[in-house]
Amino acid sequence: MRMYDIILKKRDGRELTDGEIKYFIEGYTSGDIPDYQAAALLMAVFFQGLNARETAGLTMAMSRSGDRADLSAIPGIKVDKHSTGGVGDKTTLVLVPLVAAAGVPVAKMSGRGLGHTGGTVDKLESIPGFRSMLELPELIDQVRRVGAVVVAQTGHLAPADKKLYALRDVTATVDSIPLIASSVMSKKIAAGADAIVLDVKAGKGAFMQRPEDAFGLARTMVEIGNQVGRRTVALVTGMDQPLGYAVGNALEVKEAIAALKGNGPADLLELCLSLGSVMLLLAGRAGNLEEGRNILAGLLESGRALDKFEEFIAAQGGDRRITENENLLPAAGIVESLPAPRPGCVQAVHAGRIGRAAMLLGAGRENKESQIDLSVGVVLNKKAGDRVQAGEPLAVLHASDARRLEAAREVVLQAYTIGEQKPEPQPLVYGMVPEKI
Amino acid sequence: MRMYDIILKKRDGRELTDGEIKYFIEGYTSGDIPDYQAAALLMAVFFQGLNARETAGLTMAMSRSGDRADLSAIPGIKVDKHSTGGVGDKTTLVLVPLVAAAGVPVAKMSGRGLGHTGGTVDKLESIPGFRSMLELPELIDQVRRVGAVVVAQTGHLAPADKKLYALRDVTATVDSIPLIASSVMSKKIAAGADAIVLDVKAGKGAFMQRPEDAFGLARTMVEIGNQVGRRTVALVTGMDQPLGYAVGNALEVKEAIAALKGNGPADLLELCLSLGSVMLLLAGRAGNLEEGRNILAGLLESGRALDKFEEFIAAQGGDRRITENENLLPAAGIVESLPAPRPGCVQAVHAGRIGRAAMLLGAGRENKESQIDLSVGVVLNKKAGDRVQAGEPLAVLHASDARRLEAAREVVLQAYTIGEQKPEPQPLVYGMVPEKI
Repeated sequence: MRMYDIILKKRDGRELTDGEIKYFIEGYTSGDIPDYQAAALLMAVFFQGLNARETAGLTMAMSRSGDRADLSAIPGIKVDKHSTGGVGDKTTLVLVPLVAAAGVPVAKMSGRGLGHTGGTVDKLESIPGFRSMLELPELIDQVRRVGAVVVAQTGHLAPADKKLYALRDVTATVDSIPLIASSVMSKKIAAGADAIVLDVKAGKGAFMQRPEDAFGLARTMVEIGNQVGRRTVALVTGMDQPLGYAVGNALEVKEAIAALKGNGPADLLELCLSLGSVMLLLAGRAGNLEEGRNILAGLLESGRALDKFEEFIAAQGGDRRITENENLLPAAGIVESLPAPRPGCVQAVHAGRIGRAAMLLGAGRENKESQIDLSVGVVLNKKAGDRVQAGEPLAVLHASDARRLEAAREVVLQAYTIGEQKPEPQPLVYGMVPEKI
Repeated sequence: MRMYDIILKKRDGRELTDGEIKYFIEGYTSGDIPDYQAAALLMAVFFQGLNARETAGLTMAMSRSGDRADLSAIPGIKVDKHSTGGVGDKTTLVLVPLVAAAGVPVAKMSGRGLGHTGGTVDKLESIPGFRSMLELPELIDQVRRVGAVVVAQTGHLAPADKKLYALRDVTATVDSIPLIASSVMSKKIAAGADAIVLDVKAGKGAFMQRPEDAFGLARTMVEIGNQVGRRTVALVTGMDQPLGYAVGNALEVKEAIAALKGNGPADLLELCLSLGSVMLLLAGRAGNLEEGRNILAGLLESGRALDKFEEFIAAQGGDRRITENENLLPAAGIVESLPAPRPGCVQAVHAGRIGRAAMLLGAGRENKESQIDLSVGVVLNKKAGDRVQAGEPLAVLHASDARRLEAAREVVLQAYTIGEQKPEPQPLVYGMVPEKI
């Protein structure tokens, strides 16, 4: 087998065999196949696509390229959840203890990632003492004892995906649906999930701007799951404006705690119930979505979800007192509110721009070497549909540096559109793939 | 400027500026832009193409990437000729002295290349003493004295093309018309030609199988010439069966000498007159093609073309007595004729297969390190339209090695199709681009 022939075949629109895909992934991971041939193949895939069989083959080859977490020692159906990434998305912080409180074991491996804020692991690391680097036996032990764990994903999991993603990033081959889908699914499968719930974001703060594109990605990932025997359900959800109000690592932990206490933003709560009820159904803890939703609402109301959060935080060395005293979390030195330049009704809060502002403040990583400032970020005061007086605060900026604050302020202002009429509300959940479960 | 943005732009089908193309070629030549980004761009170009302006920009950027031969010290319009490569194509060996005898200065730089036989330089090196590595001042001096020179093209001429071609060769991005056209034209322009005559081959022994594809390539190259101020004319010519009878380095030199003596194959003679008359017209030595053709025919008949051949060979250290005594050329140890398996009329002699047989005998390079055997090859006895008796020789194989002979014999047999009816003759010249000059 020769890599040249594989490139030529895909370039000419022909279907690759599983053997050819495996040859490519193994050779590329080992370094036998050079970057330039991989780059040519990726660009050919960008233009010619991969069918469902090839995408599943690529996913499995990448998931087998390194370590695979064996979670079989944990009883029950392990359900993983993945979001394609949005601004202010702290659902994992709420969902993990909430679903665990319902008796579904959750062993979540989360990336740090690049972006406007850190990943879930970075957010959790704003809790004093929290340890996100656990070895597999320790992880399994914690799930058995506590029912929940969140750890940083290591490079040993799906290293082919890691290497390919880095190449796609510099060769303009990131935005290909089969490549995105196989990248996500390969990591989930290597991480040992039995079933997978996907939150595919659509909107101005998401990778996919249009819901129809997000549905395309959702269908491809669900199809992969079906092909490789992992039950997979996706929700396509709105990300035109940030989820909740807080954007920034410690700021989002505070908002997640509020949600677990029953005081969270309505959209965050609704998304957690929507995703969580699917997780319960896939884990066999609920007979239908309605039942799952009722179970979860009860766990929030009774405080058992909050108890589970404290228990899981403490199990990983974190200070459980943060739920009572948020001053234990890192706080920014400069807190400044941004007054509305004119009165009216907020038409939109551009999620991508709020994310950009959080990044400018230091909440996210521009590149792999960037240091995250866990304390900084943006807390919205007004969202789409809210009325505002001139001079009333639109948002509050949390900064460590006056120059960065200056730059972020401009971007937050540009994120707000203020008009006269109340805008049509945007749906939070566009739909589910498959439509019925 | 970032290479990433250039890849993205072309991937999305947008037009690159001359500045972007220059940035890519300079960065890639210097090594600042890595192979993997160049490979991604090449594949994007394969799918999205380049328009005439971009193709001309790429050509000029590559032609300026290294040394450029300054032939301005040679008086007159320097006309270069290039063939896209066929089997048994020894036209340059005839054309150079023929056109020079008409008073048109010819300074030809020729590649060695990979393929079924060596390049023109390899063929000439089968002449004892012939030197193909001349420095530029020596080259110019020879053209001024003798009117003709043929030298090996150095890697300092259009090094960007050399590096890119090597990358295209391993990334399945060779067969893109703008990339082929800019590769050819960049070398011709760097070699200092004022005007260029192209022989674009179409058929079973050519890169382009279908005449319409060859016309597409011809139009693209002529358009580049127009865009960069080098008058360029292309003939699209047939390459279903080999040109002439001889395929192999020394064997082709013998056939070229026969042609210069007026005893050459009709198709070789006709092609030399067709291409040569265009060269004379572009150089201003003939007012129209008919006049050019008459001048050339006269030079062949009078023996002045043969005299010029001897003079130019001798000027480069070669033994001029080869025209009188072909035993001075290398000869193969084994000469064996291939009998026809059945009687009939030859329908076709597949040029690609005859080329493959010559390669198997050792006449060509499989890779850059291959050593060429100058003595070996195939001499056809029968071509399409010829009647043959069972047992009558179809071809004569010249070999140095019995095992190689065995392998080549099979392939030559497969090249011949013998049927009943006399086939329709294939055109030698399909047409000219532009149609009128």
